[in-house]
Amino acid sequence: MHILIIGAAGMVGRKLVARLLAEGEVGGRAITAMTLADVVVPPRPENPPFPIVATASDISTPHEAERLIAPRPDLIFHLAAIVSGEAEADFDKGYRINLDGTRLLFEAIRAQASYRPRVVFTSSIAVFGAPFPEEARDGATVDLPIPDSFHLTPLTSYGTQKAICELLLADYSRRGIFDGIGIRLPTICVRPGLPNKAASGFFSGIIREPLAGKPAVLPVPDSVRHWHASPRAAVGFLMHGATIDLEAVGPRRNLTMPGLSVTVAEQIEALRRVAGDAVAARIERVPDETIMRIVAGWARSFDASRATALGFRAETSFEEIIRVHIEDELGGTFVG
Amino acid sequence: MHILIIGAAGMVGRKLVARLLAEGEVGGRAITAMTLADVVVPPRPENPPFPIVATASDISTPHEAERLIAPRPDLIFHLAAIVSGEAEADFDKGYRINLDGTRLLFEAIRAQASYRPRVVFTSSIAVFGAPFPEEARDGATVDLPIPDSFHLTPLTSYGTQKAICELLLADYSRRGIFDGIGIRLPTICVRPGLPNKAASGFFSGIIREPLAGKPAVLPVPDSVRHWHASPRAAVGFLMHGATIDLEAVGPRRNLTMPGLSVTVAEQIEALRRVAGDAVAARIERVPDETIMRIVAGWARSFDASRATALGFRAETSFEEIIRVHIEDELGGTFVG
Repeated sequence: MHILIIGAAGMVGRKLVARLLAEGEVGGRAITAMTLADVVVPPRPENPPFPIVATASDISTPHEAERLIAPRPDLIFHLAAIVSGEAEADFDKGYRINLDGTRLLFEAIRAQASYRPRVVFTSSIAVFGAPFPEEARDGATVDLPIPDSFHLTPLTSYGTQKAICELLLADYSRRGIFDGIGIRLPTICVRPGLPNKAASGFFSGIIREPLAGKPAVLPVPDSVRHWHASPRAAVGFLMHGATIDLEAVGPRRNLTMPGLSVTVAEQIEALRRVAGDAVAARIERVPDETIMRIVAGWARSFDASRATALGFRAETSFEEIIRVHIEDELGGTFVG
Repeated sequence: MHILIIGAAGMVGRKLVARLLAEGEVGGRAITAMTLADVVVPPRPENPPFPIVATASDISTPHEAERLIAPRPDLIFHLAAIVSGEAEADFDKGYRINLDGTRLLFEAIRAQASYRPRVVFTSSIAVFGAPFPEEARDGATVDLPIPDSFHLTPLTSYGTQKAICELLLADYSRRGIFDGIGIRLPTICVRPGLPNKAASGFFSGIIREPLAGKPAVLPVPDSVRHWHASPRAAVGFLMHGATIDLEAVGPRRNLTMPGLSVTVAEQIEALRRVAGDAVAARIERVPDETIMRIVAGWARSFDASRATALGFRAETSFEEIIRVHIEDELGGTFVG
């Protein structure tokens, strides 16, 4: 089978390519070719066992999606997106890439006769915005997990664009234009690489940096709760989405992935258990009102019953998330 | 104030124009001009008390939205849409008019400096598709009213297009490009005019035709339940949407309107009470499997708490809906 990955140069894209190369097949069908596309030329694996084309591509450019699907790939992973902060800062760019680019891809597929590929699309929990379900319990207000039936309430243009693409994906799938599935990723933790300016960056930073012997800044209180899955789990979601029986999924094609709801305090306690007090002591508390305010609007916990029943699996403890990072990124060791 | 109505030639549009002419003001501000647009030139009221331009316009045509908003209307009612059946039969036309046309309108507003009109957009309960909430009670399965927090699950391209426009309206409003509100209309009953081929047509037909002394066909069992509001209530929703305090509405700008959940049996019983046995006897039962199957996927009842709390009002009995029809369409009389 021929696989097209749009957004192959990103963190999840690169890990997905590595996983596909390691497996050599998807759902029992041997991979015979791959096209890797991104706004910059994605890294091309050395000595691949099948032909791989790596190409720079902006799918919002006319005829670019047609070019990418000309070899009629059987399986398309569409991971490409302008991230939340940039889509908020640049209205036109966010709508052009995240909405128009996706629609042009879907339309390019529709224009091909007798062609019905599987399309695995990465959506985001940013399709949900506060307020979330809660209930009074013992005089306090307690968050309830957000159910699969909760309405789409994005509070960013990025979340709006992802929600719109989810609706398009469901309608194009319902009409038999392609077989689509939308994967709402949790926040990916531990995100490898350098610290970045994303408001969510500290969730990974407070684990990644101390394990590398470096200090990390925590800008929010220890009580802040968030929804996490590892990069390895994210790739697992995409692989499962590539082969899952879509009859069993039915017309509601966009699924909140399972994840782990933990507080920052629980993250730090897990780090202490896995790596020791000295590592955990590298976290410095520097409150940042702006980040606190942004994070307060984010979802903290989901009831991902549908995806779990359909076989999607995430980590079940934060220690496990940390160990995945140590294994996959640090060669099994850390700076104690 | 200058008011633009896009979709002014439709049933709701014409009634809205009549109401605006009768009131002469909106929220205490005198109406000084009106632009009425539709794919066909809308009827232009005779001897209007202020200038009215009636114009044929397809907002999916380049620069057409710019032309309509060039006079910088303070209030825009966007009612224009390709209806459900046609949007399902013609994929391109549905997306072009219902999605691209709406987006071009929103973009034309964004392109104007220092311009922030109120935009009242008619959405639909077609943004929701089965299965709906239900619970087991005394060994039977009972429908629960669909809550305001229920996810968007359209099962038609029309419903998908309306849901996408809702998301765009909320995002453009959040960014301060305009002040939008989306009004999810119930099925309008009693719809005046000739019987049509719409699958929902019988809900109005079984009231309208007998009151006019004509036979009517009922293609579904008497137990079928549906969600109704009168044309007068629909115009009331739009008028309230034009003046409601949007701070009180908050970022969730699309509201399920209140309505009346009744069975066909309750509709017929109300007709009997209002107009007598002889009128109700003009309904003939001719089961139609196709219509039964289509109607089975439709929402039957909503909990429209938010809209009700925000002051939107519908009829509270089906007798009232019938009396509105007799008053507004039949000059107060019917064929007994």
